[in-house]
Amino acid sequence: MKAGIVEYRVPYADTDQMGFVYYGNYLTYFERSRNELMRTWGFTYKELEAMGVGMPVIEANVKYHAPAKYDDLLTIRGVLTELHGVRAKVSCTVMRGDVLIAEGWTMHVFIDLATGRPVRIPQKILDTFQASPEG
Amino acid sequence: MKAGIVEYRVPYADTDQMGFVYYGNYLTYFERSRNELMRTWGFTYKELEAMGVGMPVIEANVKYHAPAKYDDLLTIRGVLTELHGVRAKVSCTVMRGDVLIAEGWTMHVFIDLATGRPVRIPQKILDTFQASPEG
Amino acid sequence: MKAGIVEYRVPYADTDQMGFVYYGNYLTYFERSRNELMRTWGFTYKELEAMGVGMPVIEANVKYHAPAKYDDLLTIRGVLTELHGVRAKVSCTVMRGDVLIAEGWTMHVFIDLATGRPVRIPQKILDTFQASPEG
Amino acid sequence: MKAGIVEYRVPYADTDQMGFVYYGNYLTYFERSRNELMRTWGFTYKELEAMGVGMPVIEANVKYHAPAKYDDLLTIRGVLTELHGVRAKVSCTVMRGDVLIAEGWTMHVFIDLATGRPVRIPQKILDTFQASPEG
Repeated sequence: MKAGIVEYRVPYADTDQMGFVYYGNYLTYFERSRNELMRTWGFTYKELEAMGVGMPVIEANVKYHAPAKYDDLLTIRGVLTELHGVRAKVSCTVMRGDVLIAEGWTMHVFIDLATGRPVRIPQKILDTFQASPEG
Repeated sequence: MKAGIVEYRVPYADTDQMGFVYYGNYLTYFERSRNELMRTWGFTYKELEAMGVGMPVIEANVKYHAPAKYDDLLTIRGVLTELHGVRAKVSCTVMRGDVLIAEGWTMHVFIDLATGRPVRIPQKILDTFQASPEG
Repeated sequence: MKAGIVEYRVPYADTDQMGFVYYGNYLTYFERSRNELMRTWGFTYKELEAMGVGMPVIEANVKYHAPAKYDDLLTIRGVLTELHGVRAKVSCTVMRGDVLIAEGWTMHVFIDLATGRPVRIPQKILDTFQASPEG
Repeated sequence: MKAGIVEYRVPYADTDQMGFVYYGNYLTYFERSRNELMRTWGFTYKELEAMGVGMPVIEANVKYHAPAKYDDLLTIRGVLTELHGVRAKVSCTVMRGDVLIAEGWTMHVFIDLATGRPVRIPQKILDTFQASPEG
């Protein structure tokens, strides 16, 4: 299955006084992998928005396994794990080498940006997903 | 049951180009209510840390019901909904007037800050929770 | 002179591993006081945008005098210190009680949001400023 | 002169409702280039801290020339432009291709992390700087 993969160096900005990456920052990390995931499909979220379609998050979940620290080089990986009706789920992991730092998922709903209402998944995305062996 | 309640005015900083509060920021909003929740118990998270105990988040979940926007005045409310063994769960809501914007929870584990290992819940917190009618 | 004043409790999210508020966060603190400053004028930045006018920042400066820490209750204060041509300057201070934590300023240019081009300062803002004894 | 250079893809998280990168985020961008700058010297800020020395920012300045947008691939570049007494200045630029997005600088003071007091610049850093043709 196609994956969106990002290498990310942790800045001081992301740490908190416990010396670890603040827990809320992982949702931005997940987003970074989703952006690359879409790029592997041959288009970008920006292009999706230009088509009048958005994919806001309706639910997010993160499990924190081990702390990440300043200057760590992390690998963030996202894969599409569900796609039906008007929804898509992307599952993500954050690793430092072989160490699992965090994992989680985001559930998205496709909406018409003009009306804010749910819309069917664009055919371009369906085609991409169905072409995937595990899709 | 005691609740930690914060009024919060959304700055431009928290919005994204969709015009809504970025989804990761809600985890900071939840934290703001947890800080006030502990204050209602008669001590602060800072004092807990001074006792050598931390409460890192091991899992977080957020459901997004309606978008919050720039300059919205939000009410963030957190309550302790589980406390057993070495764990505590805090459930939070974010409201704009009567509108539910987001809800979710964080699961925490009590740790010894010197060793990083789980520790029993400090008696001070147990007492506070058991004194609560719904605790 | 009218001032925009905000009380702000520092969350864990704003700290870094040195145990202090990360230096970039002060620009968000400044923004919080600017939002309140405009409110003292009888309208909001949101209403300005609805009039088709924006005030993007073209330069920012911060001097860091003393560290702010987790759970500090800060007072952020912003005042309009220049207003001429298409520009406005807002000067801000961040205090913890009597201790000066940081001070700085932002220079803004009034733009037409439709074209992105500089525009004359809306009369509503000029009137507000000129009505001020020190304006 | 040695430069710290980072390629950075703008996430949705960094944008605001005007559709541009929020102005405070540039201070994190600058930090990313400073981290790489130190790495070009053969050590890291983390190692400096392990030596008991910190380099907190005492002043920062940013000039915003053009907006950066979601999914832009930015090049952030930082160089050491002053080093004397207990201070160091790092000047940074943020470019999108040939377009200058923002430029600015941060002034740092070397401190003993144990006492918080200013200390002379570590010889390791002086050597590095003096070895540079423009240093």
